[in-house]
Amino acid sequence: MSDLPKRVHFHEEGPREGFQIERETFPLAQRAALVNALSETGLEEIQVASFVSPKAVPQMADAEALFEAVKRKPGVRYDSVWLNERGFERARACPGVHVTGRIALYASDAFALRNNNCTAAEMRSRVNGWLDRYAEVGVPMERALVMAAFGCNFEGEVPPARAITELVWADRACRERGFTLPRVYLADTMGWANPQSVRRLVGMLREALPEAEVGLHLHDTRGLGAANVLAALEMGVSHFDSSVAGLGGCPFAGHGEAKGAGNICTEDMVFLCHEMGIETGIDLDALVEAARLAESIIGRTLSGRLMHAGTLAHYRDRQATARSS
Amino acid sequence: MSDLPKRVHFHEEGPREGFQIERETFPLAQRAALVNALSETGLEEIQVASFVSPKAVPQMADAEALFEAVKRKPGVRYDSVWLNERGFERARACPGVHVTGRIALYASDAFALRNNNCTAAEMRSRVNGWLDRYAEVGVPMERALVMAAFGCNFEGEVPPARAITELVWADRACRERGFTLPRVYLADTMGWANPQSVRRLVGMLREALPEAEVGLHLHDTRGLGAANVLAALEMGVSHFDSSVAGLGGCPFAGHGEAKGAGNICTEDMVFLCHEMGIETGIDLDALVEAARLAESIIGRTLSGRLMHAGTLAHYRDRQATARSS
Repeated sequence: MSDLPKRVHFHEEGPREGFQIERETFPLAQRAALVNALSETGLEEIQVASFVSPKAVPQMADAEALFEAVKRKPGVRYDSVWLNERGFERARACPGVHVTGRIALYASDAFALRNNNCTAAEMRSRVNGWLDRYAEVGVPMERALVMAAFGCNFEGEVPPARAITELVWADRACRERGFTLPRVYLADTMGWANPQSVRRLVGMLREALPEAEVGLHLHDTRGLGAANVLAALEMGVSHFDSSVAGLGGCPFAGHGEAKGAGNICTEDMVFLCHEMGIETGIDLDALVEAARLAESIIGRTLSGRLMHAGTLAHYRDRQATARSS
Repeated sequence: MSDLPKRVHFHEEGPREGFQIERETFPLAQRAALVNALSETGLEEIQVASFVSPKAVPQMADAEALFEAVKRKPGVRYDSVWLNERGFERARACPGVHVTGRIALYASDAFALRNNNCTAAEMRSRVNGWLDRYAEVGVPMERALVMAAFGCNFEGEVPPARAITELVWADRACRERGFTLPRVYLADTMGWANPQSVRRLVGMLREALPEAEVGLHLHDTRGLGAANVLAALEMGVSHFDSSVAGLGGCPFAGHGEAKGAGNICTEDMVFLCHEMGIETGIDLDALVEAARLAESIIGRTLSGRLMHAGTLAHYRDRQATARSS
């Protein structure tokens, strides 16, 4: 366990993931209240909304109003998702949005075709367009992410080299424009990762891009989320995307439907880190309260475990008090 | 990962755990159907019911009738739980019940008092009585388990030595009667374990009792179940108690209520083993079907993940077919 990172950073995607997947649109005040609660937990990055077509995603039509309603906490970065120039312009024009350069690539052609109606190679040329655009407006690069890095429901097993190749390409494309690419993410978009494949890909990525920080975007689709995070922590991985309360989980218990299975649960994974002596800068009890708020807003039991069982803090406090008295 | 076991054994506790925790009593035919489905998965041990007071646990009042209704598969051991002489006699008298010597001890006095109205030391003397009884009737010893081995909601942190001391005592008590104690179990009764404490206790237990096989009884109370299983697998642990579909989880999303949080989910952990190349002897697709049957009987979404997402088998098959054609 000697490679454990001293500190782990969680990129909170719950508000965007969670409210985007639901059929109903929740009151803006409730969505703002969740972001405000998350702002008080010590989280450094919170993904608030998507700037996408109101026709395609009516739940996110009021992204600007939501950002305006959020009480912004100094030191917290509030970010967003965009998929086209119109969305990028909305994000840049919206006060309070932390706009950084993000690019996404595909390790699976079948998934790229299904999700973006293009091949993985065609996605690269689209990414070239984004890199030029970011250079043009002076937006600093933050991350490149490769989807379906561990496997694909539409293609099957994906050779590890595929994800590495895409991220090495992204790194070179950034360098050609005088950027550095600080972080590279492996995304287990459809829940194919296991502790061994996590170790293998993280190891290969470190060898290929020794200067970049490695991050993971994991879903708990098949119950291996916590095991995959442990394997990554033991490889020294210190950046994870996650969702408070497990927000983003599919609201329909449709069997055989990996679609919409949630990100790993932020507070459960923060608990894992803290129990192993790894710092996160997060107030776990405050985060559990935010998770309970998320559950009360959504109105059904969400997949996070810790928020239902409670943390161990008060048991330990009671024990300490008993000993000292 | 060199210490991974070649084969892992799962002791299925879902039928007993799951139907015992529910307020309603489910039709005997449905409970028998679940056991019958589990019998066809390759599981070697299935805990069918408890022989306990019908007043205290009306859901288990018809344990004998349930055993009679079960279609017993050769090679599968169908076991049960008893807490007193009356229950033990019922189990011994009931056709089809695999009766072996099991003893339970406490690493926490506070939990022993709460759960058994006795101290951990008093529990030992009760256990002496059971060992004499097992010797008297010639029931072979199978396992000793120590509850609250990793921590306790009523006592707080529990020093690792406490659990080890209890199991070393149990081993000696067995030897004094000419028994050997084949398996010793650490139970994380209230969800305090983390990967580091799992490694620590398993290591200490191996040193203390090098001849016994180590087993784990883990609950996924706070979301670390899969991570704790991974840590145990990397220590070579090859015996786990678990529940199909995560049966046994608390049906009420009561915050701060660790009570009733489910065992680790059998099919999710079998999936973990198989993805890491560890044999279980289990047909995962058949087990997922059994999990879906369990969920349909209980009538609400259960915590198992794999049964909702589906296994990876058909994606791989489709890929193999595409390649060969």
